[in-house]
Amino acid sequence: MSGQKTVTMTPIGFLRTDARDIPRHWSLSREEGTIAIDQEYIEGLSDMKPGQKIIVLFWFDRSPAFLPRYLRQTPPHRREPLGVFSVCSPRRPNPIGLSVLTVLDIQHGNIRVRGIDMLDGTPILDIKPYITEAEDCPSYSEEEA
Amino acid sequence: MSGQKTVTMTPIGFLRTDARDIPRHWSLSREEGTIAIDQEYIEGLSDMKPGQKIIVLFWFDRSPAFLPRYLRQTPPHRREPLGVFSVCSPRRPNPIGLSVLTVLDIQHGNIRVRGIDMLDGTPILDIKPYITEAEDCPSYSEEEA
Repeated sequence: MSGQKTVTMTPIGFLRTDARDIPRHWSLSREEGTIAIDQEYIEGLSDMKPGQKIIVLFWFDRSPAFLPRYLRQTPPHRREPLGVFSVCSPRRPNPIGLSVLTVLDIQHGNIRVRGIDMLDGTPILDIKPYITEAEDCPSYSEEEA
Repeated sequence: MSGQKTVTMTPIGFLRTDARDIPRHWSLSREEGTIAIDQEYIEGLSDMKPGQKIIVLFWFDRSPAFLPRYLRQTPPHRREPLGVFSVCSPRRPNPIGLSVLTVLDIQHGNIRVRGIDMLDGTPILDIKPYITEAEDCPSYSEEEA
C-alpha cells in the first residue's frame, strides 16, 4: 500500500448545461450538456469519437457530508430502504458519481454529451471507455481470451 | 459549486487476494478475492446478493503521480498510443479504477468477488449497483420511462 490513508483528487474539468430538469439517473436521461476539459488534459481526448459511450466519474460536490443514517436510503418510487451500496444516491461515503453518456461532438476540449444526470458546474474526475465485454477492452488480445 | 477545489476520499475497505497473476482488466479475469468493508459501513451492504454484478471503484494506490507523458499511452497488444481517457491504464489524472465484479458470497462485511484486476491491499472507494438499462435503476418508475 502507499502508506497514505486518504487520496485527494482535483477535477479535470466541469460539466456545463442549460438543462433545468435533470433526471435522477443517466439511464432515464436524454438531457444534454458539455464537459469542458482543462487545457492540460485535452491531449488525453485524442481517441474519443462521436457516437461512442463513455463512463464519466464525477464529484457530487453539493451533497451533504455522509452520516450513518444514509447507510440505508429509500429511493424515489420505492417503499423500503436499500443499502447505500445498492443505490445510486449522491449521499455516499465517498461522493463519486458515475454516468454512462453518449458523445455527440468534441471540439477542442469541449465534449458534447447526452444522458446527463449531473447539475451545472459538476466537477469531473475521470473519463473511461465504456466496456461491457472483453472484446471492448483496449488491451484485449485474442490469444489470451 | 462547493467552493472547494479538491476532494479528499477515505477508503471504505480493502481488497484481499491470494491471486498472484492478476489480469490487466476485469473483463479478462476469473480471479477471486475478498473485499473487506470497514465495520462502520457494513449496514450499507444490506441489499447486496450473491450472483449479482457490482461496480467497484478503487484507488490505484501504487500508481506513479500523473505526468504529461501519460496523456497518450500504448496499451498491451497495441502498436499506437491512445488518449488516457480511452484506455483503462492505472496512470490517470485522478487514480480511480473501476471494475465490474460478480458477488459470490457476503459474510459480515466480507464480500467474496470474482473478476478482480486489483492488487492485494487495494483501497476500495465505493460500490454501486451495475446498471445497464433504465429498468435496472433502483429509482426506476414505469410512468416516467
